[in-house]
Amino acid sequence: MWQLFQFPLCPFSRKVRLVLAEKGVGHELVRENPWERRDEFMDLNPAGETPVMVEPDQAVTLIGSQPIVEYFDETVDRMPMIHGNAALRAEIRRMTEWFDIKLYREAVEPLMNERMRKRLVNRESPDTRVLREAMRTASEHLDYLDYLLDHGRWLAGPGLSLADFTAAAHLSVIDYLGALDWRGHKQTKDWYAVMKSRPCFRPLLGERMEVIVPPGHYDKVDF
Amino acid sequence: MWQLFQFPLCPFSRKVRLVLAEKGVGHELVRENPWERRDEFMDLNPAGETPVMVEPDQAVTLIGSQPIVEYFDETVDRMPMIHGNAALRAEIRRMTEWFDIKLYREAVEPLMNERMRKRLVNRESPDTRVLREAMRTASEHLDYLDYLLDHGRWLAGPGLSLADFTAAAHLSVIDYLGALDWRGHKQTKDWYAVMKSRPCFRPLLGERMEVIVPPGHYDKVDF
Repeated sequence: MWQLFQFPLCPFSRKVRLVLAEKGVGHELVRENPWERRDEFMDLNPAGETPVMVEPDQAVTLIGSQPIVEYFDETVDRMPMIHGNAALRAEIRRMTEWFDIKLYREAVEPLMNERMRKRLVNRESPDTRVLREAMRTASEHLDYLDYLLDHGRWLAGPGLSLADFTAAAHLSVIDYLGALDWRGHKQTKDWYAVMKSRPCFRPLLGERMEVIVPPGHYDKVDF
Repeated sequence: MWQLFQFPLCPFSRKVRLVLAEKGVGHELVRENPWERRDEFMDLNPAGETPVMVEPDQAVTLIGSQPIVEYFDETVDRMPMIHGNAALRAEIRRMTEWFDIKLYREAVEPLMNERMRKRLVNRESPDTRVLREAMRTASEHLDYLDYLLDHGRWLAGPGLSLADFTAAAHLSVIDYLGALDWRGHKQTKDWYAVMKSRPCFRPLLGERMEVIVPPGHYDKVDF
């Protein structure tokens, strides 16, 4: 049985969980707080970051959300995540990187630092300047999503793909942290409601991080 | 004919150039300074970052080093970059991400900011504290490479792979910027000498960025 080392507000863990659920890959969740830098976890992944997946019987260890997703997309046919011809696959990978690198660095990571890490780990107050800037950037990313969704139903090419699950994973963390203002973003809101209503999303939305409480609309498909 | 939008000190452009040369994909280089945010380039890639590849006749646009490499690995058999079984492919992708994300953020990007961007674009002096910290981190990364190369000839699994070309691309930028101290890193130095001696590496090492001059050993295979 696969084990997934993850924590509830890690967007990369969420991305993997959505993909595993869509593909029907059985797994056990192992809660890992990367900031504790537990020896056994550092031995698994010297970068000290979630997600990591381990299959003890097959002696396989997979590290990082994109290598994990590519692994299961190569080995499990159900619900292809990176599909179509080579050019479309490149477009799905590009949009996925956009969210994993750009949206993460500009909005998700600073919001996690200010609203989660400082509270849980450092016991400091958030830096309101950094918070404001990250929320402003998150709102710009919503504008960009609105633009993409004006031109198509999904975020990369004609079908539902890894790009959609990745964007939804990152947005769900920002939303949990109460940093998304959905007003004026009808296209993205409608798309996100569709994503939220998929069965893969339900366990994520039901989970809570200790101390940090999401806003009331967070787990509602109608929000 | 493919066009590759790139600039000489972009590590991601270098990664793509090494792969294209190894695979024998004909292409034309188009010099792009991303900091100029040229309208036509921003239309190609809203992230405003190199590398981008365009094939006008096929109307294909590929954006970002990993999507580009995956595209050519899927469509060109020669010199497979991400090879082996699914678990080995995951390991190659993980090590590639290690260099593209971790080495880049911790060392390459701050060094490019301090030693290239501030000089060419902002006309400011470098921040010596940031420089020192980035050089210290680069040295720690060399220690880690030494450790990996103590356990095998290549950086991911038993064969030469994308992980090696990616690491070499990033290191070559740090080396150009005069920020690598090779003393005490025999394993990595020997491996890098092998990488440098491959034909794919010669055009890169012969190229110069205006104003910024690399140290004397930079383009020597024996250094």
